[in-house]
Amino acid sequence: MPKEDFRKFGHEIVDWIADYFERMETLPVLSQNAPNDLKNALPTSAPEQGEDFGAIFADVEKLILPAVTHWNHPNFHGLFSTSTSSVGVFGEMLSSAFDMKAMLWRTSPASTELEPVVLDWLRQMMNLPADFSGIIYDTASISTLHAIAMAREKLNLGIRERGMSGRTDLPLLRVYCSEQTHSSIDKAVILLGLGQKSLVKIPTNERFEMDTEKLREAIADDLAAGHLPLCVIPTVGTTSSSSVDNVERVADICERNDIFLHVDTAYAGSAAIVPEFQHYFKGLERADSIVTNPHKWLFTPFDLSVLYVKDLDLLKRTFSLVAEYLKVTETVTNQMDYGIQLGRRFRSLKLWFVMRYFGQEGLIERIREHCRLARFFASWVDNSEDFEMLAPVPFALCCFRACPQGVDDPDAFNEKIMNEINASGEAYLSHTKLDGKFTLRLSVGSIRVEERHLRKVWDLLNEKVNADL
Amino acid sequence: MPKEDFRKFGHEIVDWIADYFERMETLPVLSQNAPNDLKNALPTSAPEQGEDFGAIFADVEKLILPAVTHWNHPNFHGLFSTSTSSVGVFGEMLSSAFDMKAMLWRTSPASTELEPVVLDWLRQMMNLPADFSGIIYDTASISTLHAIAMAREKLNLGIRERGMSGRTDLPLLRVYCSEQTHSSIDKAVILLGLGQKSLVKIPTNERFEMDTEKLREAIADDLAAGHLPLCVIPTVGTTSSSSVDNVERVADICERNDIFLHVDTAYAGSAAIVPEFQHYFKGLERADSIVTNPHKWLFTPFDLSVLYVKDLDLLKRTFSLVAEYLKVTETVTNQMDYGIQLGRRFRSLKLWFVMRYFGQEGLIERIREHCRLARFFASWVDNSEDFEMLAPVPFALCCFRACPQGVDDPDAFNEKIMNEINASGEAYLSHTKLDGKFTLRLSVGSIRVEERHLRKVWDLLNEKVNADL
Repeated sequence: MPKEDFRKFGHEIVDWIADYFERMETLPVLSQNAPNDLKNALPTSAPEQGEDFGAIFADVEKLILPAVTHWNHPNFHGLFSTSTSSVGVFGEMLSSAFDMKAMLWRTSPASTELEPVVLDWLRQMMNLPADFSGIIYDTASISTLHAIAMAREKLNLGIRERGMSGRTDLPLLRVYCSEQTHSSIDKAVILLGLGQKSLVKIPTNERFEMDTEKLREAIADDLAAGHLPLCVIPTVGTTSSSSVDNVERVADICERNDIFLHVDTAYAGSAAIVPEFQHYFKGLERADSIVTNPHKWLFTPFDLSVLYVKDLDLLKRTFSLVAEYLKVTETVTNQMDYGIQLGRRFRSLKLWFVMRYFGQEGLIERIREHCRLARFFASWVDNSEDFEMLAPVPFALCCFRACPQGVDDPDAFNEKIMNEINASGEAYLSHTKLDGKFTLRLSVGSIRVEERHLRKVWDLLNEKVNADL
Repeated sequence: MPKEDFRKFGHEIVDWIADYFERMETLPVLSQNAPNDLKNALPTSAPEQGEDFGAIFADVEKLILPAVTHWNHPNFHGLFSTSTSSVGVFGEMLSSAFDMKAMLWRTSPASTELEPVVLDWLRQMMNLPADFSGIIYDTASISTLHAIAMAREKLNLGIRERGMSGRTDLPLLRVYCSEQTHSSIDKAVILLGLGQKSLVKIPTNERFEMDTEKLREAIADDLAAGHLPLCVIPTVGTTSSSSVDNVERVADICERNDIFLHVDTAYAGSAAIVPEFQHYFKGLERADSIVTNPHKWLFTPFDLSVLYVKDLDLLKRTFSLVAEYLKVTETVTNQMDYGIQLGRRFRSLKLWFVMRYFGQEGLIERIREHCRLARFFASWVDNSEDFEMLAPVPFALCCFRACPQGVDDPDAFNEKIMNEINASGEAYLSHTKLDGKFTLRLSVGSIRVEERHLRKVWDLLNEKVNADL
């Protein structure tokens, strides 16, 4: 593309994005498309001849935008509310232009060196000790997969070399987490060949926290049966209710039995930077590995997940494999040695931009404000006769439901309310089940969210309750 | 960030990228930094207060740029020469602004629907039959991991549920590839718990192609020994020399023994769109799965790897797991069901831009031209007394070495030449070993590469040979 065209269209796209961020609130949060609307609007084959970029870009507004559910919308409260900052977009612009594949130091000194520096900044902000080293993967699923693979390698059972099939000398390997654990752990044990059955889901207490006494029993029973505990994965900030497992107690059990401890704090890890929330993260310093996702709650565009590990050399032993065409003579870190992926995107750039642009104080303030807003919303629920909270609010997620008098089937009633609000495009909520109850989830995490957005959701909810009674 | 600032800095970044692409050739291909130059220039903690973005952006030119090895440089001939087009950068700008996590249809109709459409366009261009469905992952490592996981699931040995440890009923599972296969396959069998030992590396012939007679024997021997073949992975376009395994013959063997067939054409798959190269891809229509990487040789920024599978439902059975908070009532495709990662970036947008902007003809022309240039370079080597080719050139990779009279240790001599050229920043070559010989690799794949760039490398090589004699 001629330079002048690149500038012209590049500026147009920047302006379009600036307008997009500004008019966000006028757009429906949830795409109003029906399934296949976009598909049916597209040709079934690629064009023979190239098209003018102006025509292509026009289709972004016409075809793509209506098919977008706006994760950046301040009223996106579903799943976990995530959002990118402006400087996060700038980071992606530049890293896509560099288009580096960070495998060897020599092919990507910038990524190889910026990544550990930026992750050390984040480590300090999270108050983790200096014996943790960080590495960036795409998603928490992949970070956790690497953590469990490390734990498996640490057993020294020759699984890297000999595998697990065709052997009769291997005990059943067991992974422990709570009933509230994220499905990525199930997927990881499936992929690793451990089997879903090997995943022991420990019951939780009334606050949806792992019952550590039951964990202790489960491990003792397994050991008595000749099984081998592989790792324990407590969560600080579960996906369903943001509950907090007691990592200190889990760490005691792991130490006593010499079991690998991986902590999943993909969502809530960002809150560890706020001094008054530090108490939720006690015990993390004793973990072998920790996953946290700046792309969730640190205003960094997807994808950027961080795995902190104590034993970087174990991670290297788990995967390192150097083909002839990748052999180099420098004694440097080559990022390809630390994971399943050979090439890596230059992801640290966007996080560097975010940490510098907001500064530690700016990031702390925003996370603190989100948590304040969530507690504020919870106070409205608590003070209403028509609604009730269904879980504590340690961070910025409210789990609640409508419970007006005269409703026979609260599950169906709440599902109906949620679907109506989501379909309206005014706001997006998601749901979970807690204690068997259909539970509404409102997550506060957008960089653009203000009190008025929560007020809007609260008004919508009350309108629905009043209309339906 | 105020809208006006976003526009201002966004325009500055666009202009900087436009200049970067223009002045690329004045920059050293390989970063001239020494290890830790960048690291030592950075503060050891994040700033307390936020910084002005202007100051942050100035550091990109000052600190980051010197630490970049320029993959986009037309004289980057190492590994595989990959590069992004301008419209690829535009795609990343927009998808980072949308910042969607394509897990459920409802959270990302745009990604969920554009992806299969664009991959069907590519499927047609590659002349693959309509019974292949495509799915995008980040890298070929992850695509291949999914392919082997599918093959494992297809065996119906209950591995998803019961795993492989603590069992005595599982035969040794075996995966077959050639000696020239990419290390990602080793990493995948390690991760999947199959063990490196389970990977049978079939010897290759004088053109570095899998000896299919030896494959047949290896499978027969394994079956006789009570082992169970899991899958065979031929490669069309190996990383070391771009050699082409005979997929037709491998497919015959797989069919006879009912073995899963996965074809690795991560690099060369893009050349399947060129009619006169179709013959290299015979037999792909009989595969169970195929991986090809548009981020390698289709001018699409990293990362975007495509896995084509015949049995999409098998892929779903391998991983699908739906937590309560992800349950939806629509009968739609939810991309999270097809892989280890829950969220996915909106990657199809950039590939859509590339396919529309260049059109089928534009893409075919460029790939064809790269192959022509590589053959042209090979003809210079063939006509020189000081150099020799060490492998055929089916696509756009030349494997060769200097062999001037009077050199006692050609391996050391070639390594010295390569290191000197790379250190000069004038061009970047990589190496491999073929038949035990230190081999120079020159890959032609940049969207900016012209004949003059190859002429420059050829002149540099001849200068070195003449200077050193």
